[in-house]
This record gives sequence, structure tokens and C-alpha cells, in this order.
Amino acid sequence: MSAIADIRKTVASLHAQLTKYELVIWTAGNVSARVPDQDLMVIKPSGVSYDDLGPEAMVVTDLHGNLVEGDHSPSSDTAAHAYVYRHMPHVGGVVHTHSTFATAWAARGESIPCVITMMADEFGGDIPVGPFALIGDDSIGQGIVETLADSRSRAVLMHGHGPFTIGKDAKDAVKAAVMLEDVARTVHHAFQLGKPERIAQEHIDSLYARYQNVYGQ
Amino acid sequence: MSAIADIRKTVASLHAQLTKYELVIWTAGNVSARVPDQDLMVIKPSGVSYDDLGPEAMVVTDLHGNLVEGDHSPSSDTAAHAYVYRHMPHVGGVVHTHSTFATAWAARGESIPCVITMMADEFGGDIPVGPFALIGDDSIGQGIVETLADSRSRAVLMHGHGPFTIGKDAKDAVKAAVMLEDVARTVHHAFQLGKPERIAQEHIDSLYARYQNVYGQ
Amino acid sequence: MSAIADIRKTVASLHAQLTKYELVIWTAGNVSARVPDQDLMVIKPSGVSYDDLGPEAMVVTDLHGNLVEGDHSPSSDTAAHAYVYRHMPHVGGVVHTHSTFATAWAARGESIPCVITMMADEFGGDIPVGPFALIGDDSIGQGIVETLADSRSRAVLMHGHGPFTIGKDAKDAVKAAVMLEDVARTVHHAFQLGKPERIAQEHIDSLYARYQNVYGQ
Amino acid sequence: MSAIADIRKTVASLHAQLTKYELVIWTAGNVSARVPDQDLMVIKPSGVSYDDLGPEAMVVTDLHGNLVEGDHSPSSDTAAHAYVYRHMPHVGGVVHTHSTFATAWAARGESIPCVITMMADEFGGDIPVGPFALIGDDSIGQGIVETLADSRSRAVLMHGHGPFTIGKDAKDAVKAAVMLEDVARTVHHAFQLGKPERIAQEHIDSLYARYQNVYGQ
Repeated sequence: MSAIADIRKTVASLHAQLTKYELVIWTAGNVSARVPDQDLMVIKPSGVSYDDLGPEAMVVTDLHGNLVEGDHSPSSDTAAHAYVYRHMPHVGGVVHTHSTFATAWAARGESIPCVITMMADEFGGDIPVGPFALIGDDSIGQGIVETLADSRSRAVLMHGHGPFTIGKDAKDAVKAAVMLEDVARTVHHAFQLGKPERIAQEHIDSLYARYQNVYGQ
Repeated sequence: MSAIADIRKTVASLHAQLTKYELVIWTAGNVSARVPDQDLMVIKPSGVSYDDLGPEAMVVTDLHGNLVEGDHSPSSDTAAHAYVYRHMPHVGGVVHTHSTFATAWAARGESIPCVITMMADEFGGDIPVGPFALIGDDSIGQGIVETLADSRSRAVLMHGHGPFTIGKDAKDAVKAAVMLEDVARTVHHAFQLGKPERIAQEHIDSLYARYQNVYGQ
Repeated sequence: MSAIADIRKTVASLHAQLTKYELVIWTAGNVSARVPDQDLMVIKPSGVSYDDLGPEAMVVTDLHGNLVEGDHSPSSDTAAHAYVYRHMPHVGGVVHTHSTFATAWAARGESIPCVITMMADEFGGDIPVGPFALIGDDSIGQGIVETLADSRSRAVLMHGHGPFTIGKDAKDAVKAAVMLEDVARTVHHAFQLGKPERIAQEHIDSLYARYQNVYGQ
Repeated sequence: MSAIADIRKTVASLHAQLTKYELVIWTAGNVSARVPDQDLMVIKPSGVSYDDLGPEAMVVTDLHGNLVEGDHSPSSDTAAHAYVYRHMPHVGGVVHTHSTFATAWAARGESIPCVITMMADEFGGDIPVGPFALIGDDSIGQGIVETLADSRSRAVLMHGHGPFTIGKDAKDAVKAAVMLEDVARTVHHAFQLGKPERIAQEHIDSLYARYQNVYGQ
């Protein structure tokens, strides 16, 4: 169970990135991580303040969202996270926020066009929009998976709701949430005073390929 | 009197949430709490800096705003808070701010349409607008009470003035003030580049019902 | 000279309010205070970082901006501050910033209309615009004084430049700078999605009269 | 090698200014400094978190971007920095960010018009736009150098990408990056509610001349 203890620690501390970058307020937003090789996930509890999100507050569920370990109820978005883990085996982390600018695009149901190189680098093109879906069953998870299946993007804007991001692990999904809000804000402001052109597809492809292979250490 | 001592502490510390979320500047804004079973309330003093708002600086008044205990004059908005407590017995906390985006909607006298699920969850629909009213008598309190009587919302935008929020206790009213500014900002930006559609009423109803009953611990 | 020592301390510490409220960046912006009964003023030095603005870094000049005491050159805006003190005997403090939204209105040379009660309370009406004026002689000071002579406002937007605020002392002028940016931002956003109406003049008058006489301790 | 040790320290600590002024997120953005008289430069490593950017993490390369000293790969923007140092001998520091408002102007490929005195002071006129250029060869560096050769500005907006700034040393280039985002944001907001007029060229010239010669200590 020490793998789970480590993941609890990681997931708890990644929530601090959500507040640092002002992607969440009060108790909104959640990070989860898959427990490798165990059909389990670690996720934030429901409605607990960010000041009280230590490792021991994190919740362990199976990949249908049933509580396995923990003193709190899991996040009310647990079903969506679980659906993603069941249907996208390469995904190791999921993040949901209501970050301001990503949610503004989501409210209009508009994808964010790839007009800056950072979007090409990080998301490989536009940020797609997923369907409007109610909480309570698998509709949100299904909407995320179906939308991201057709895209290089690690982020999806659920219509009328807000963004979900995925990653190879929880940190990578948090990075995607942070970068998403940054590009959502920048492109929002870019469109307020004119109509920036989408970067040519061949340039997007080459930027994305380079960034995936060359960037970092 | 130890109940009052506790409430002084709570109300004092909740003011820190107003600055943390940048809902207030300088000495603007105020939180109050009803003292259960005593026809009394605890409220912020008038014109005192946020750095000096310890428990002992808080003021106790009756539900007509008359000073009962404290070294300072009560907030200049005391009459409005008191009116709410007299006419809405289920309300245990009231908050007033001039938070930027809520006040921008208030300046236009426009209600905030429910275009994101978080609004449905938290406020059960649109954020309504109350009448323009001058300080100095019961008009502001009356405007708040009459507007909220017709609404599931815990927030009202007083025309040309700014938001008031209510809650079952002071913390709940502060949460409403924080969430209000968040949705006011997000929906503002959503409308800047288009016209997001209101969520269907049946979906709003179902989201609101679920959130009131299921969310949290 | 102990009065001057106190004023050095006050002026130095008030600069921290400018950074706290994000009204200035790098070395921009300056606060000054009149030395009562001495035809002297204390002002920020030119081009010194906000991290190095202790009391000893402050500069004392006469009311023509000539250096009287201090190791640094006075702020490049000293002539404007000095002109205000010479021509407005009731003014005890002057602040200049390039705060974002006030400067955006100033860039257009547009006054900020009084559409929220906080503006009526704090400034007694619209925030007026002063002329475009070059640095280097008395034109800026003259523009400030002539504009504010016709107004209840403690703030003026110098066209194509930025805001100056005055007060009965330096703290009051800093408060005006903070409140000015707050209303400039709120009213900016209010106008982005429509056309808020100016508050009726009689209501502005009554709000202003009340706030000057009743608010605070 | 003690000159290099000092420069490592300076470059490392200047990265903290980028986060302080919120010009960068996650690992984006980079500062470099020329090593005087040595055909070397010190630059940020690629993809390392801002929390881990101590002096020892900095990388030394020659002016073609080849690693000379350091445990990490140099920033993926190293080629652009190196090109600038090779072709602009008076430049001692280069900074690249994706700061929100500068990047929004860059996304549209629009120069920022000189409508406020602070732009005249600091940049001597409009902020020019450079060509869209892909990472991987000298195109970005070439675009920066050719654009800035025709301008008094220390900042260039690379089309569809983001800003680069130069300075006589690294601190001066960081100052330019901070001031650039500030004017990009202010002028953005100014244009949202109207069309501010460019300052007359003769006034720009006189403000720029004065600021370069008189301001500071």
C-alpha cells in the first residue's frame, strides 16, 4: 500500500498548484491519479476546503468510483474521472477546474483556435468542446473520452460547465490545466480587439512534434 | 456571552476571506452574523482597516442596528443587514462587497444569466437585480429582501451599488460572495465574445436539487 | 526635524500600499507629503526600486522641488507635486501612479462617469480628465490644479499619461489612488457589455454629503 | 570563472521577477545574459521548474548555443538568444516570455501604438511586430534582430508567438519585459472602449530623450 501513500501525497500537493495559479476557489476543482496496476484511483474528497487537503484527506476508489479507503466521500466528479481511467488506459491523471477563461469559452461552447505557438506546442492544435452533460451518471465521462479520442489535445471544454484535462500522470494533467487557462486567457484577449489567424496546420504539426520530442531535460 | 465571543471571532476571521479573494479594498465591504436566539447581530465596524479587524473590533447591535456592545460605530451598512435579519428568519449571515465583476453587472442593472452549471449548483438560476436605493433608511434592506424572496439565489445585485449575499450562517454568506464574484467574472468574459445560451430550466432545477442534497460531506 | 523623520517614515511605508494594490510596477509611481508649516515636502527618490524605499531613501525638497535633504535625486514628477502644494493649501498629500484601468481611461482622455454609489461616496461624481502635458516644467502641475479646482474629485486623469490623486494627507491621497483604480476597473467592465446610466445628480450629492460626514469612526 | 559565477547568480534571481510580475507560468519563459568579453552566455535550462532555478541550474553556452558548462540542456530558445548576441553587440541581456497581453497583440500581429507617455519614455514609440518564425533554426533570432534594428524599442512581438526584449544587461531586459506587459495590458484596455490617439511624434521624441538622460539616480 506504500504506492498509494505516495500517490496520496502527490495528489494532495498538486491541489496547491490549482490555488497557486487561481484555477479554483473555495472547494471547487479536483485532481485524481490512477494507482498503477491496481484498478484504483486517488481523488480529492467532496466539499473539503483547500486548507484541509492533506494526504490523509484524499480518498481511494475503484475505477467505478466506489469508496475503497478514506474518511470522506469522494469528489462529486468521481464518476467522470473513473470513466476516463476505464476507457483511456494511457491516462494516469485527470484534473477538473472551473478556471475563468476556459469556462468562458466552455459557456459559449466554442473551441479555442490555435493562434499561438504555445497552443501548438502543448496541445497540438485547437482545444475542443465536449457536449453539455449532467452530473450523476456516465455522460460527462463519456463526453470527455469521445471528444479527446479525436484530438491531440489533453484538454476538453465541457459545454456550459468547464474544462477537464488529462495527462500521463497527475502532474502532467495539472500542467495541462495551468497551460489551458493561460492560453484560454491570452486567446480571449487576442480576439477582443480583432481576429487573429489560426497558425497553418503544417506549422502546428511541426511545432507539436518538436515539443513532444525535444523540449525539457 | 460566550456565544457572542465565538461569533466575534468567526466574523472577524471571515473578513480575511474577503481580502484573500480580492472582493474588497481598503475598508470597504462587511460581514455580519446573527446571534442565535438573541435578536442581536455581530458586524464589522465602520471605516476600520482590514489589518485591524480582530474579534475585539467587531460590534454587537440589536436587529435595528442600535449599538449594544463595542468600541466602534457599526458599519454604515448595518441598517441593511439588520433589515434582512428581521425579515428573513432563516438567514444567519449577510455579506456586502463591491467586488469588481458583480458590481459591473449591478452598475448596468443586469441580472447574470445562468449559463454555467456552477451557477445552477450554487445559486439555482440567474442572479437577480434589486432596485437602486439610497443608504440612510430601510430602502436597501427592503430591496434585498423583496428581490431574494422571489429567487433561489443567495445573492442580489443592488442596482448602481453592488452585491449582497445571504447564508444560513456567516461562512455560507461569504461563500456565496466568493462564488458570486467568480461566476460574475466568468459570465462577463463569456459574453464578451458572443452570446452563451442559458441552461435549460429543467437542467438548472436538477443541478440545483442535486447540489443542495448530495454535495459535500 | 523630528516631524520630518515621521513623515519620511509615513511616506516610505505608504509606497507599500501602491505595490500591495498593484498600482505600480518596477520603480514607477510616487507618493509625497507636505511638511506642515515649513514650505517643504517629502517625496520618493527617482528610479529607486520599491524594495529599497526605506525612510532614509526619501527626499526632502522645498515647494519648488529643490533638494533640501537626502542622498538621492527627487522623483522626476517632483515639479508636479510641488506645484500642487503651492497652489492648493488644503492638500497635504499627492500620489501619482500609472495604474492600469485609470491609465486606460486617461489614454482615451475620457472622464469616468459616476455610475456606482462608491464613486459618489468617495469622489462626489465623475473623475475628470486633465490636459496632455509634457514633463519638464509646470504644465502637469497646472493641469492638475486647474482640473481639480472645478471638481469635488480628489483624482484627475492626465490625458495620455495617468492619474494623480490628492488628499488631506498622504494616506488620504493613497486611499484615493486605490479607490480610483477600483472604480476605473469596475466601470470599465460595466461599459464593456452595455451602457450603465449615470446616477441622478441629486443622489450623487446626497451620497457624497453623507459619506463625508457620517462614514468611519 | 568568477564573472560567470556572478552572472549565474544574477540570471537565476532575475527569473524570480518573471514569476513575481506573472509574466510566465510553469517552466515557460527565459532570461539570458552575455558574459562580457568571452563569446559566452548564461541561460535558463529547458523545462526546469521555477522553484528549482538556483544559480547552479543555469547553463553556459557559446554564442551558437553549444553547451559549455552545466548539467542541463539549455532553453529551447537558446538559438534565438545566441543569434541576438552575435548580431547586436550592444545587447547584454535577452528575455523571452509568453506574457498574456503582449502575446495577445502578438497573436493578431499588431504593433502596440504609443498612446501613453510611459511607452514614449520606456520604448521610444510603438512596440513593433516581428515575423512568424518556427523554432529550430535562426529564423526567430533573425526576425528579432531585423525588427529591432529599425526601432528604438527594446521589445518585439513575434507574430503568433510572444515577446522578446533586450537590454544593456539582463536586468534591463527583464525591466523591458515587465514594462512591456504593463503597457500591453493598459493599451489593450484603452482600445476596448474607444480609440485613443497616438501621442504626437515630436512629444514622443522629447519624452524619450528626457527619460534616457534624466530619469533615475
